[in-house]
Amino acid sequence: TIVLNDPKKRNALSLEMLKSLQNDIRHEADSKDLKVIIISAEGPVFSSGHDLKELTEERGRDYHTEVFQTCSEVMMLIRNHPVPVIAMVNGLATAAGCQLVASCDIAVASDKSSFATPGVNIGLFCSTPGVALGRAVPRKVALEMLFTGEPISAQEAVLHGLLSKVVPEEQLEEETMKIAKKIASVSRPVLSLGKAAFYKQMSQDLRAAYSLTSQVMVDNLALQDGQEGIKAFIQKRKPTWSQ
Amino acid sequence: TIVLNDPKKRNALSLEMLKSLQNDIRHEADSKDLKVIIISAEGPVFSSGHDLKELTEERGRDYHTEVFQTCSEVMMLIRNHPVPVIAMVNGLATAAGCQLVASCDIAVASDKSSFATPGVNIGLFCSTPGVALGRAVPRKVALEMLFTGEPISAQEAVLHGLLSKVVPEEQLEEETMKIAKKIASVSRPVLSLGKAAFYKQMSQDLRAAYSLTSQVMVDNLALQDGQEGIKAFIQKRKPTWSQ
Amino acid sequence: TIVLNDPKKRNALSLEMLKSLQNDIRHEADSKDLKVIIISAEGPVFSSGHDLKELTEERGRDYHTEVFQTCSEVMMLIRNHPVPVIAMVNGLATAAGCQLVASCDIAVASDKSSFATPGVNIGLFCSTPGVALGRAVPRKVALEMLFTGEPISAQEAVLHGLLSKVVPEEQLEEETMKIAKKIASVSRPVLSLGKAAFYKQMSQDLRAAYSLTSQVMVDNLALQDGQEGIKAFIQKRKPTWSQ
Repeated sequence: TIVLNDPKKRNALSLEMLKSLQNDIRHEADSKDLKVIIISAEGPVFSSGHDLKELTEERGRDYHTEVFQTCSEVMMLIRNHPVPVIAMVNGLATAAGCQLVASCDIAVASDKSSFATPGVNIGLFCSTPGVALGRAVPRKVALEMLFTGEPISAQEAVLHGLLSKVVPEEQLEEETMKIAKKIASVSRPVLSLGKAAFYKQMSQDLRAAYSLTSQVMVDNLALQDGQEGIKAFIQKRKPTWSQ
Repeated sequence: TIVLNDPKKRNALSLEMLKSLQNDIRHEADSKDLKVIIISAEGPVFSSGHDLKELTEERGRDYHTEVFQTCSEVMMLIRNHPVPVIAMVNGLATAAGCQLVASCDIAVASDKSSFATPGVNIGLFCSTPGVALGRAVPRKVALEMLFTGEPISAQEAVLHGLLSKVVPEEQLEEETMKIAKKIASVSRPVLSLGKAAFYKQMSQDLRAAYSLTSQVMVDNLALQDGQEGIKAFIQKRKPTWSQ
Repeated sequence: TIVLNDPKKRNALSLEMLKSLQNDIRHEADSKDLKVIIISAEGPVFSSGHDLKELTEERGRDYHTEVFQTCSEVMMLIRNHPVPVIAMVNGLATAAGCQLVASCDIAVASDKSSFATPGVNIGLFCSTPGVALGRAVPRKVALEMLFTGEPISAQEAVLHGLLSKVVPEEQLEEETMKIAKKIASVSRPVLSLGKAAFYKQMSQDLRAAYSLTSQVMVDNLALQDGQEGIKAFIQKRKPTWSQ
């Protein structure tokens, strides 16, 4: 579990925070026992997005470039990570904070949470958050959020696909842990192969997608855990995974 | 209508069943009167997906390859078929069974139906079902299903776009037939041209999509049934289709 | 605001009406004060789509081609316009009328509105409307509408992403104006840059999308209104936009 722990600054994704997040996510990948990552936050705000004090004229173009490139790398790192990444959200997630939720594989939120891309209000359109948001919700929903900056509720977010699940605040941890434990009970090599194949095929046309994944299925069956799973099923016993 | 009729084996999509399905769908295409295909199933399980006994080590890599290639061909055959294909689901559809539902053009299900991609549980990630599922529902919904293997209800499925409609069990056949009869009342050449154009343009950028479909509209108007339809409308009478 | 004002002909998108719409939208782009366009309609029908009297055999292939090309250009003009375009719908929108709603950036409708692509009924499949519809709603929803011609309610439309919001008829204008005023309160150069970047990145793969938008964020910060917005936020005052 990775916790955004700067509640006084509303968990702003400063360059320092982004680099720490990048390190944590990379570091977790090295742990062979790891099967799932949860990203959560301390305090009433999940994350308010970039630290605006880092975006003033004085900081200069090169600094700004580093901020947005690092942020984009963190989002792609989540996508390319070998294990599923779950966002557990209890509160407001705005701008790059909303982007972080949209970039996770799975997102569970409490019913008091809300989501916004309010950059237009301060003259900075949420163009990078729009990459993740536009791939998670219908276009008309994304554009209303981006053009008006108005928040949507957790209920609307789950309806439109930004969240996997919304639960009462007191059940948030329990429900998230239930999903995490379920994922932790399956084979890591199988999870990694499946996650990578899913995202790869999604950008392909149907024929290429089936050609790729048919091959992936055959490779999956040839894995030690693939054969163990089939055998255990036929023998009506619990499988024992290599990892 | 094509019926999966091996309820004792939970309508498993064995290689034999897949080839029979392929034959049936191809055969139907030859019938010039045909305007719509319904795929339904006998028994409480719509389909449980691949027959796991065919996926053991003993069968070997070439056999596994044939299974997944044949399955992928069936799914693409539905997409490329000249008439609409409707899935009528009354029960559980899992793995390649869920993929079959997601691959149909239209899907109607009873409210007791449910849908899952539980391959992770037996060490075989549902990578091929993920192709169809990921194109039918939002990514976060697809990934939660794929990573946890947990089922979603018919209500959730329609909410997220996996189904066109959900109805009480006792109305399933009536509702499906209503849609099928509506489709059967229109012109087959028009349906075929429209279905092919829809899927083709969906993978294009906006300019190419409009360039293609503007041409398709002009061609459609030049069809005998295109002119007949416009004339009948203006003359306030019922059209008579060529097919 | 642009008003479709031929209620006697159910606001049919005749070639003349399409050219007038094209002119109006282009003309609005020249007004430097403009920040948002609203497209609404007089009468109980928002728009019934193409004028079928223009699609008879007698008019000929070249005329038909001009009709569909002009229509497609109007739809792409909305997409490429420098300011957000909102559809305000109070009634039935069918065929190219439904396409017009789907093509706007934001769409608000009264709860009595409904949406259909009934071309199949007259032998003319709604292939061009399918371009916009298929990019707004899930595939199974689009295909059921296209194959059966049956309407969906405003409630279903918002559920599936065709609308941004549905409200009681008596609140339609108020709610739409609220969104429009919110948009009118932000910086026009920022809106334009953001809208263009959003649509461009949506057709790119994730890496290209982030590379593009990271650059756009840096460029946005270098705009006069970008710096003004950040400064105003830090100084806790209202920003003053250049436009």
